[in-house]
Amino acid sequence: MDTRERLIESARELLWERGYVGTSPKAVQQRSGAGQGSMYHHFRGKPDLALAAITRTADDLRGRAEAELSAPGSPIQRITTYLRREREALRGCPVGRLTQDPDVMADPTLRAPIEETFAWLRKRLTDVLAEAQRQGELDGELDLADTAAAFVAVLQGGYVLARAAGDAGAYTQAVDGVLGLLSGHVR
Amino acid sequence: MDTRERLIESARELLWERGYVGTSPKAVQQRSGAGQGSMYHHFRGKPDLALAAITRTADDLRGRAEAELSAPGSPIQRITTYLRREREALRGCPVGRLTQDPDVMADPTLRAPIEETFAWLRKRLTDVLAEAQRQGELDGELDLADTAAAFVAVLQGGYVLARAAGDAGAYTQAVDGVLGLLSGHVR
Repeated sequence: MDTRERLIESARELLWERGYVGTSPKAVQQRSGAGQGSMYHHFRGKPDLALAAITRTADDLRGRAEAELSAPGSPIQRITTYLRREREALRGCPVGRLTQDPDVMADPTLRAPIEETFAWLRKRLTDVLAEAQRQGELDGELDLADTAAAFVAVLQGGYVLARAAGDAGAYTQAVDGVLGLLSGHVR
Repeated sequence: MDTRERLIESARELLWERGYVGTSPKAVQQRSGAGQGSMYHHFRGKPDLALAAITRTADDLRGRAEAELSAPGSPIQRITTYLRREREALRGCPVGRLTQDPDVMADPTLRAPIEETFAWLRKRLTDVLAEAQRQGELDGELDLADTAAAFVAVLQGGYVLARAAGDAGAYTQAVDGVLGLLSGHVR
């Protein structure tokens, strides 16, 4: 990996672990093993490096979700696969956690990939739910955009529960809970 | 308000806005208007002040939840009131956001009130759901602890969606979504 890559990958890890406020240029430099000042050679500064890191993390998340949501299987099966995918619950969501970072939220450029990722995910789940409804797999009683928002929220909140409890099982419980609720609407 | 109180209240606000890593003793001192060094007069240091602040915030959250969950009305009505309560969605949850703080999670003393708050809340909601099931308001198909975890997760994740979208409406959609899902199990 060249220096630029190493800087981006180290920034991704640190942003996930410590957030934007808690990630210093010095820590990125140390973790990446890059020489002093090399961040300023490859990037205009911390926000510029963070943008590259956040964009890549957001693209990853979206790519994985799309692979599951467009896989073979019925719409509800695909949503179930997506929700049940093994996640590193105790580490939290590398995209969602940044919404708690006031400096990220205050910067429209840094916030954009986060906003777009969640907007895309909610829309994508809404579309798959609509498919389920058209095919008669889902009853006609649910508001699909609201249901999609609830699914995304359960995953994001599941991380909070897991970290609070120090137990990844709390995440699984939240996902099982929302799938149990969904079962009342599946034919 | 005396100095100790002002320090605690300022720490609560700053922890909510900026998290533990982003809250410096200097910022607490400035916001509280307390004199230099007064934090060290009243508290052993930042962790000690943070513990007082977190404990108070957690007690508040628990008190409000208990008031709604033990109010008059059927179990499902009480849960609905609790879930639909107007919250400052764009500010996020003052307790939940601390789970993203690596320094809080790594300190068993600071983490304890957060862990206890979520454990209590999940148990309390499980009990109210059990009431609903006994009274025949809820069908017998749901795992109640999982359902309770899903409810708490939707609230916590709703904050993430709201902050990502810059729109409190996203929080409301997630809550409406999970209540829509619940409706399939309510008689």
